[in-house]
Amino acid sequence: MGLKQIKVSVVGASGYAGGELLRLLLAHPNVSLSHVVSETYANQPLSKAFPAMRFSKINFSSFDRQKIIDGSELVFYAQDHGVAMKQSADLLAAGLKIIDLSADFRLKDAATFEYWYKHEHCAKEALQEAVYGLPEVFRDQIKSANLVANPGCYPTASSLALIPLLKNKLVDFNSIVIDAKSGVSGAGRGKHSLDLHFPELNESFKAYGVAGTHRHTPEIEQALSFIAGKDLVVSFTPHLVPITRGIFASCYAKLVKTISCSDIIELFRAYYSEHPFVFVLDEGQLPTTKGCYGTNQCQIGLGVDARTDRVAVFSAIDNLVKGAAGQAVQNFNLMCGFDETTGLTGAGLWP
Amino acid sequence: MGLKQIKVSVVGASGYAGGELLRLLLAHPNVSLSHVVSETYANQPLSKAFPAMRFSKINFSSFDRQKIIDGSELVFYAQDHGVAMKQSADLLAAGLKIIDLSADFRLKDAATFEYWYKHEHCAKEALQEAVYGLPEVFRDQIKSANLVANPGCYPTASSLALIPLLKNKLVDFNSIVIDAKSGVSGAGRGKHSLDLHFPELNESFKAYGVAGTHRHTPEIEQALSFIAGKDLVVSFTPHLVPITRGIFASCYAKLVKTISCSDIIELFRAYYSEHPFVFVLDEGQLPTTKGCYGTNQCQIGLGVDARTDRVAVFSAIDNLVKGAAGQAVQNFNLMCGFDETTGLTGAGLWP
Amino acid sequence: MGLKQIKVSVVGASGYAGGELLRLLLAHPNVSLSHVVSETYANQPLSKAFPAMRFSKINFSSFDRQKIIDGSELVFYAQDHGVAMKQSADLLAAGLKIIDLSADFRLKDAATFEYWYKHEHCAKEALQEAVYGLPEVFRDQIKSANLVANPGCYPTASSLALIPLLKNKLVDFNSIVIDAKSGVSGAGRGKHSLDLHFPELNESFKAYGVAGTHRHTPEIEQALSFIAGKDLVVSFTPHLVPITRGIFASCYAKLVKTISCSDIIELFRAYYSEHPFVFVLDEGQLPTTKGCYGTNQCQIGLGVDARTDRVAVFSAIDNLVKGAAGQAVQNFNLMCGFDETTGLTGAGLWP
Amino acid sequence: MGLKQIKVSVVGASGYAGGELLRLLLAHPNVSLSHVVSETYANQPLSKAFPAMRFSKINFSSFDRQKIIDGSELVFYAQDHGVAMKQSADLLAAGLKIIDLSADFRLKDAATFEYWYKHEHCAKEALQEAVYGLPEVFRDQIKSANLVANPGCYPTASSLALIPLLKNKLVDFNSIVIDAKSGVSGAGRGKHSLDLHFPELNESFKAYGVAGTHRHTPEIEQALSFIAGKDLVVSFTPHLVPITRGIFASCYAKLVKTISCSDIIELFRAYYSEHPFVFVLDEGQLPTTKGCYGTNQCQIGLGVDARTDRVAVFSAIDNLVKGAAGQAVQNFNLMCGFDETTGLTGAGLWP
Repeated sequence: MGLKQIKVSVVGASGYAGGELLRLLLAHPNVSLSHVVSETYANQPLSKAFPAMRFSKINFSSFDRQKIIDGSELVFYAQDHGVAMKQSADLLAAGLKIIDLSADFRLKDAATFEYWYKHEHCAKEALQEAVYGLPEVFRDQIKSANLVANPGCYPTASSLALIPLLKNKLVDFNSIVIDAKSGVSGAGRGKHSLDLHFPELNESFKAYGVAGTHRHTPEIEQALSFIAGKDLVVSFTPHLVPITRGIFASCYAKLVKTISCSDIIELFRAYYSEHPFVFVLDEGQLPTTKGCYGTNQCQIGLGVDARTDRVAVFSAIDNLVKGAAGQAVQNFNLMCGFDETTGLTGAGLWP
Repeated sequence: MGLKQIKVSVVGASGYAGGELLRLLLAHPNVSLSHVVSETYANQPLSKAFPAMRFSKINFSSFDRQKIIDGSELVFYAQDHGVAMKQSADLLAAGLKIIDLSADFRLKDAATFEYWYKHEHCAKEALQEAVYGLPEVFRDQIKSANLVANPGCYPTASSLALIPLLKNKLVDFNSIVIDAKSGVSGAGRGKHSLDLHFPELNESFKAYGVAGTHRHTPEIEQALSFIAGKDLVVSFTPHLVPITRGIFASCYAKLVKTISCSDIIELFRAYYSEHPFVFVLDEGQLPTTKGCYGTNQCQIGLGVDARTDRVAVFSAIDNLVKGAAGQAVQNFNLMCGFDETTGLTGAGLWP
Repeated sequence: MGLKQIKVSVVGASGYAGGELLRLLLAHPNVSLSHVVSETYANQPLSKAFPAMRFSKINFSSFDRQKIIDGSELVFYAQDHGVAMKQSADLLAAGLKIIDLSADFRLKDAATFEYWYKHEHCAKEALQEAVYGLPEVFRDQIKSANLVANPGCYPTASSLALIPLLKNKLVDFNSIVIDAKSGVSGAGRGKHSLDLHFPELNESFKAYGVAGTHRHTPEIEQALSFIAGKDLVVSFTPHLVPITRGIFASCYAKLVKTISCSDIIELFRAYYSEHPFVFVLDEGQLPTTKGCYGTNQCQIGLGVDARTDRVAVFSAIDNLVKGAAGQAVQNFNLMCGFDETTGLTGAGLWP
Repeated sequence: MGLKQIKVSVVGASGYAGGELLRLLLAHPNVSLSHVVSETYANQPLSKAFPAMRFSKINFSSFDRQKIIDGSELVFYAQDHGVAMKQSADLLAAGLKIIDLSADFRLKDAATFEYWYKHEHCAKEALQEAVYGLPEVFRDQIKSANLVANPGCYPTASSLALIPLLKNKLVDFNSIVIDAKSGVSGAGRGKHSLDLHFPELNESFKAYGVAGTHRHTPEIEQALSFIAGKDLVVSFTPHLVPITRGIFASCYAKLVKTISCSDIIELFRAYYSEHPFVFVLDEGQLPTTKGCYGTNQCQIGLGVDARTDRVAVFSAIDNLVKGAAGQAVQNFNLMCGFDETTGLTGAGLWP
């Protein structure tokens, strides 16, 4: 009797992705939270790190490998890169499943990882076993995976905007420009530099990591190349918007044939018809980051510029939900046999 | 078998309080939504007004008295003042319960209403029957009420900050100063004046409705006078903060006896021990509006200034939740016999 | 003895561009303000519309053609399109000079204007006489012009980012993608729709006018085609950032030859060496809108992505200064024989 | 011939108050900047710290006592407390004048300073010589001072709101409550804690330093006691608003006699009639922080609540201008015999 419960632990639970994961897991009908690990807040209540979590009686704890193994069936890692790769082998060996929100297992090629992250990869075998946790492409593999590499926020927004174009070979693969914008929570909670100081950022807009130098570039290219069936490169540029949450990706590509906007919308809707979190808007409608606020939705709007033969696809997500914790829960649902949308259909806040 | 379900309708559902109510009701285990009334969006899906509600299949509809009576056991009014007072008699006569989020039934004295709202009161009898929906004072009466007047946002934050001081006769009743600050959603969704135009408000702070001229003044005084057991007046001043959500009330009063901050905190905790949504913080801690974002919590922090013999109480709420829709659902739970916290214990978003 | 003074009037002075123009003109050593026209605020002091202008004793007045002709040598129009074209003939005939901040005289082809602005053009001859007021391209013509069409904000930021690339034939003319972002003051002061209501915009990011449908598209193409020496089209997409001021244009194009970032920077610096308001940043540096706040500067940063053979140019301006009023004053200086930077070298506010 | 020029240096020039000081001094007709000291940015151009200062050719330099003495007639200190008190003796002995923006010389009683700032005072004699740089009270003394202690931002806004009430003995001196709100630039540029991290602050409102614990409390009381002619204490509470600039002080006091709002406004206007930066608004008008943005103005609005016998005074300033650098320049003008408003009458930005 009663709902099936999975014993779950979270490592790195006091950052922004960790907090969002806790928010979702606390409300998930099939989750029993075992260990919520934060060295900073060990032995303190969740509300110490997240003031709006006063209804939970759970305390943070320090990392204790054996306790986590004994008390968990699945572990989420919401740490910076470099941690999950070190700790995962023992957990996998003990039969636990892992969903890693860091970059450790996203890039299939260890050398590529080491080049972009300036960090040795110490779990190269697990790398091969890991499934890239973008359910709109790898749902079946995720269902049977023990180790899922949860995608980055920019790669999620960018890939979802471009997949149906590539799948249907509508565009010149060499023509893709991705101009992406992120809210500041994407920079994390731990680094407090002058750059992220309120008065410096507030009321300002800027680009960063330009000309293909941002770490999410190889991840986007890996995902899109898989879809395209051939290696491709993209011009990806991240920007910082002085808002807390949200990713907005504006993607441009040259059409290789004449096709109307409404026909492209049909192809997008066909592709996403079985993917409950991607909403392809009607012609003339465009997404906003606010429209995805606090939800696992990805909203997509399209335009075709016949004068330039370019299609423009605009996708919006909440970087902490579909771009991190929500997608992790979506993967959890798939890995554990629950309905993909369990715990993820709540309305977002407006305004 | 299964959970008890109450058939509920919402009138005035496309404003900000209405949207927040829908967000909460859609997730409430004991609610079955019958009619969601908005003349502006009639026959359109909820997502037309609230882009983050794409998982709901419900459409808005026009107001149809008979259909609402036939299909509802309880109706929420989230309209401007003047509507509920006109429509309530028929609904009450038909045996429905009403929770009115407008000001129509908050002030016990019709003349006082008419003075402050410049609007004739056409339901004076119902006025006497109405219960003021502040559960932290009137919980028992709410349980058996058919018509609940849901409090205003400022009165909620202000009353909760001051009640234990008055109850325990700790302060000079003539010395109360309430300096309250509200996010812009408190101004509603329908009025688009130059005042509320983004570039005029953004990065600015101001006072309005000063010197006892704001309509929430008599409501605050009515609640506090009831608690104090005698008529009192307060200096209440609202301010506008360029943020979307949140009320922060800073309340000052002269102590009539020497008492430590920790002792006052104990008295506050004693008063609120059976009220699950009011959190009295530890000495030295202070609330933030962000800490209540999206939740029905009221967080309270205190300070005592021995140099001036004044106590300062700081309360924070989300104006659309504990200050409107969340409190309405709390009242719904009480009126229908559910646990007071049902559907209201989710974690708020951070950041 | 004394500085040369030009008698100047401003029509449409109570909007955002008008206010910025007043701020600059009040501080300009060679300007004597004659008539400051606003029908809304006629006979009221400037501080009624602009609270921070309390040191001026000037009042707004109604439009009086004869008085303006009698009292002015030069008139700025800061109205919506359709006004300057009607009033300009009389003023020009009377020997006055005009700087029009609206779109009336920007597009050389009346039919193109009428297509994009859905408005008949009633001053087609003046259209031919008008000089496009982008000093970084048309400085000499501006010096002898009687009628200057002050560029739009997006066209200014976009053109300045691309001109040296086109001039030096570094890029494929068919490959240009402009992803531009604007603060909300760009939407003007007069229209108060739900779209621009604070709670709807705040903390949200969105695109609008996509797929070549924004009115600044033909203006950008006209300017770039002139530079390129041949007709070209661009993919231009505007976005709205929830900040008050600033334009940030991210421009992408395919390089037609191999060239390093530092060499492109040299070419940009060569082009702009005699243009005091365009600052080409060092390699590795990128502009921010805050860095231009309140100034007539355009700051430009560049990146070259060798993997995709694309150059990315990022330009930032204050939309109300270099994108409107400041550029108008720059044109005024040129038309009246003053140093181009007069009244425009003040430091911007930080933060 | 030409304007009289004073050789001026600034120590601590790369913080927010320092930057604002540079902005004003660069535009001041009687200032010749000698040394602009910042250890962090030594030998780098001003634009390295302040991107919007690209028109200046000046470089920051390291502190060199002898060079500063040789090259300056007056030195501004815009450092944290503890620096000016150490360096001032030598400079004063060498005949230089000093305007100190830190707290070092504000409190007349060294023991009081040491209590509140937890820092030994090493220039106790200079303390007696120092004049408190609030020109609206101490203008004559400032004119002949060699050492001016520039007031804090909260004390400036609070004192200007209350002075005419005290001077005219309109209120009960024991009844004063000051509820003040500040933009985030007030926290300075150098400290980057989690508290001031953009996502934590953004869209939140809070109090801090409550119950008389903020260091500006004794400074406010010292100023008000001087005006009142007797020692008084006030309830002062600072709050943090998620905007960059601005102080808004809401001040409440019990009237000791019946007097109309318009009569109080007359008394305020009489007091400030010879003080060009304080604007007392018409009855019914209220100030906003945006209305003072970038200017040295203090705008004051009033209300009288006859029901509670309280007067409410609302003052707004830009914390970095009238609350710091602008007031320092106002003091400079007085100390050097220039018109008090020189360099300070520019219009503020709107929006």
